Amino acid sequence: MADSPLRVIALGGFGEIGKNLLALEYEDDILIIDAGLMFPESDMLGIDLVYPDITYLTQRADRLQAVILTHGHEDHIGALPYLLKYLDVPVYATALTRGLAEIKLKEAGLLEDSELHTITPADVLELGCFRVEFFHVCHSIPDAVGVIINTPIGAVVHATDFKFDQEPVDGKLTEVDKLRRVGDQGVLLLMSDSTNADSPGFTPSEQQINATLQDVMAAAPGRIIIATFASNISRIQQVLNIARQNNRRVGVIGRSMVNNVRMAAALGYLDTPYEELLGTSEMNNLPPEQVVIVCTGSQGEPSAVLARLAANEHAQLQIQAGDTVVLSATPIPGNEELVNRIINDLFRLGADVIYSDLSDVHVSGHGSQEDLKLMLALTRPRFFVPMHGEYRHLVLHARLARAAGIPAENMLIVESGGVIEVWPDRIALGEKINGGYVLVDGLSVGDIGAAVLRDRKHLSRDGFLVAMVAIDRATGDVVADPEILTRGFVYVAESEELIEGAKDRMWQVLRTPGAASSARNKIKDVLSQYCYNRTGRRPLILPLVLEV
Amino acid sequence: MADSPLRVIALGGFGEIGKNLLALEYEDDILIIDAGLMFPESDMLGIDLVYPDITYLTQRADRLQAVILTHGHEDHIGALPYLLKYLDVPVYATALTRGLAEIKLKEAGLLEDSELHTITPADVLELGCFRVEFFHVCHSIPDAVGVIINTPIGAVVHATDFKFDQEPVDGKLTEVDKLRRVGDQGVLLLMSDSTNADSPGFTPSEQQINATLQDVMAAAPGRIIIATFASNISRIQQVLNIARQNNRRVGVIGRSMVNNVRMAAALGYLDTPYEELLGTSEMNNLPPEQVVIVCTGSQGEPSAVLARLAANEHAQLQIQAGDTVVLSATPIPGNEELVNRIINDLFRLGADVIYSDLSDVHVSGHGSQEDLKLMLALTRPRFFVPMHGEYRHLVLHARLARAAGIPAENMLIVESGGVIEVWPDRIALGEKINGGYVLVDGLSVGDIGAAVLRDRKHLSRDGFLVAMVAIDRATGDVVADPEILTRGFVYVAESEELIEGAKDRMWQVLRTPGAASSARNKIKDVLSQYCYNRTGRRPLILPLVLEV
Repeated sequence: MADSPLRVIALGGFGEIGKNLLALEYEDDILIIDAGLMFPESDMLGIDLVYPDITYLTQRADRLQAVILTHGHEDHIGALPYLLKYLDVPVYATALTRGLAEIKLKEAGLLEDSELHTITPADVLELGCFRVEFFHVCHSIPDAVGVIINTPIGAVVHATDFKFDQEPVDGKLTEVDKLRRVGDQGVLLLMSDSTNADSPGFTPSEQQINATLQDVMAAAPGRIIIATFASNISRIQQVLNIARQNNRRVGVIGRSMVNNVRMAAALGYLDTPYEELLGTSEMNNLPPEQVVIVCTGSQGEPSAVLARLAANEHAQLQIQAGDTVVLSATPIPGNEELVNRIINDLFRLGADVIYSDLSDVHVSGHGSQEDLKLMLALTRPRFFVPMHGEYRHLVLHARLARAAGIPAENMLIVESGGVIEVWPDRIALGEKINGGYVLVDGLSVGDIGAAVLRDRKHLSRDGFLVAMVAIDRATGDVVADPEILTRGFVYVAESEELIEGAKDRMWQVLRTPGAASSARNKIKDVLSQYCYNRTGRRPLILPLVLEV
Repeated sequence: MADSPLRVIALGGFGEIGKNLLALEYEDDILIIDAGLMFPESDMLGIDLVYPDITYLTQRADRLQAVILTHGHEDHIGALPYLLKYLDVPVYATALTRGLAEIKLKEAGLLEDSELHTITPADVLELGCFRVEFFHVCHSIPDAVGVIINTPIGAVVHATDFKFDQEPVDGKLTEVDKLRRVGDQGVLLLMSDSTNADSPGFTPSEQQINATLQDVMAAAPGRIIIATFASNISRIQQVLNIARQNNRRVGVIGRSMVNNVRMAAALGYLDTPYEELLGTSEMNNLPPEQVVIVCTGSQGEPSAVLARLAANEHAQLQIQAGDTVVLSATPIPGNEELVNRIINDLFRLGADVIYSDLSDVHVSGHGSQEDLKLMLALTRPRFFVPMHGEYRHLVLHARLARAAGIPAENMLIVESGGVIEVWPDRIALGEKINGGYVLVDGLSVGDIGAAVLRDRKHLSRDGFLVAMVAIDRATGDVVADPEILTRGFVYVAESEELIEGAKDRMWQVLRTPGAASSARNKIKDVLSQYCYNRTGRRPLILPLVLEV
């Protein structure tokens, strides 16, 4: 009987959106599954990207056996360059996932130094004490796999992001038989995608949107512009299929989409060679009723193609009256306002816009409650840990597992940074580790923390006011009149009287006998009060006493 | 035959969310319908509220006949104190709407000087050249009315926010007969709510959520906390009804909700006297299974009750394990991320949370496509102008009107600031006016404009850096070492080397012979480049050369 527990280290993807990264640790062996990033939340002001904190892994670099990538979405592979910058560890992925990862590693200048292995769902790997198998899953990208990790104390199923699509675009079903077999043999622990744990029923097949796409292509009087995720290779194949039936040709635009499509076509994941796609001059010069353009920006990203089209700021492409724009994606929470603005602007430019409130232009790649129950029923695990979702989704997924017969004491809900220890007969929380964020802002990774974000928030609301004065080092006499510099607080050109009043308050402080030593703090207090009384606002007040 | 057109002045509610304010002008008479506000969009940093620009009205103060309020929602009455601060004009509203408006006027110290009149849907008013009638409409607040304005050139129907609820909570149906009659007599112009122009079908009856509320009340093991809009008096009546059937008593919490409920109960719009509602001590001390609490904050507003409960920061009330929280509202676009965080935090505190993805806990108060078509069919207007919606909703509503047989040349889509001139036989765009925003920040209204918002946005992303030096006024010599003050750019405590480098760059500029005269601009250029090269960020750089 094993003395050591299997440790599940939740580094990302538990109680948050994105940034999926999990480590399984048994004695001296660590296996990493996925290396995702997340996009900044609305209060991470000025932040470009968010990586998982990998300190736990860098401190145990000699124990790392491998990174397994389950599929090619940003929240599963986006932090791979960051991980491989610090860790020398082989990466295993299916062909498409590997291709998408290589694009990122190449951009980061890390491709040549990385050890990448292509796997298929039929492969079996021996990685330290872990024997690893795979099962194909349907998701909104081809070539996705779940992972079966046979550990010294039992089998772990990592179901990644999945749904049971009975009619996937590429014809490859989620491998139910393999899951049933591993269930028959006994599963110690299931970890499974919770993203749609609040959606009843089964998630519809990708085929459901074929009808909408067909209707749009048949009816649209001019060009059709379809915005979707750059990684949604299945959706692009659907567009290619239906365009062909409607005598339209397809082009793609947007750097990340062009890169992905070129690679997917080269690897055979699209049935059209990249060279046969439309170039931008054909997009503009072919008869409009023969053109379909697939582009990035379905989440309202300000620098992506769709936002630039809506702002009429794209160099190669302009929206024309008669264009039909299809937003083939549902906004991620937080992006709705941006996406709605883009829709409004596209209508203003004379386009017709088809979006998710109007039509079935998108289906989720994540399983709904019935998919999740089916995964539980196939694998029949002893222990269950919900993953991939906000906290509410984890709770609701655990509730489904309770209904499926898993006792409450056999499951744990953890957030990123949580550690779960699994024994053959029990599951328990381990000591928490640092599972936080590493924020990327410009060229620097990790230098921005809570203090700077707090200042940015303060500045965003009320601006700042710098109050300066120069005093004689020896005598304490004021040698230059007080100066005020302010931005984001009031409109300076129309606030002369307010600013003169602030200078008067500074003079009052400076004229107080013996003020020099405590002038900074007194000026700060007096001006804070003055600004609040006059405006109801609280700018960041920074006094500066220059000694000359 | 009339020589003058009827002018429709779109001051708010056209192509935006909220801020509904419309003026009808015929020769020397102006009639104002509604005086709403909007809540700031996500890029209006630090802004508290947004009022419509009423310059057009203040410049024509002697022509104003009346303000008619169609119902008591913020986006229809919230700017009334602002309007009445500048304009001396009588206000007409139904009893509940008037009561809600009075709460606002009282807070603003304007109640005593305001001229308010209570109307019923049966009343007919003569206001200048306008003969004004009303029709009751169902909406998510009782006592809402649409307006029929008989002008010298024909009848205008202002359908405000409405739906054709066949089973409203207060039993009062939208007055279809009156609409049909006015349609029979001939409608020159219809203006109608576009909010849900992208939703197919009819909007469900408010009764649809009774079943959900009943299920929740019957099943919840402890207290039930229901968050909804403070003005949603119908929803509160529903909660009272169903609580009674389940042997639960109801309390309300949150300043605006307490004010509204007290007033609505006093006017007979709730069937329970205010004194019979639970106080906070009873909410905490009665057996939990007998308690229902209705509170504010369903949109995630950080200072409202629900957000404070989720943060465990409410003085009188704490979430307990066993509480069930119901979010009886759908997030307005832009609020989803805030609302989702609150849901996650409530789950973390051990509550069960019922929200719109899970259950029918809210229905819209706005008519869907079939409601809109029915309004068009009843009134059969010659001209049609969609209102109350984002631009996309106006376009889609116009499309419905086309399908209903209104020729394209008989309708116009305008955004706020647009002017429409209506003649008996044609409709045309007039010259645009300023229909923009007035931003409220703290105590000041209107002093914050695009320049300050631009600075706040810049500061929110990259912070600022103030570079100071004192030079001798006579010689140009540097008399105090350069100083750097920075916030929101880098974490100062760990950026000593970066900041010393910036000071070195300043010295290089200052040592250049003859630099004093242009030192400010040179320092700005050099430091901008330095910061960007070192960090990839672009803080707001403010050089200051102090002459002593």
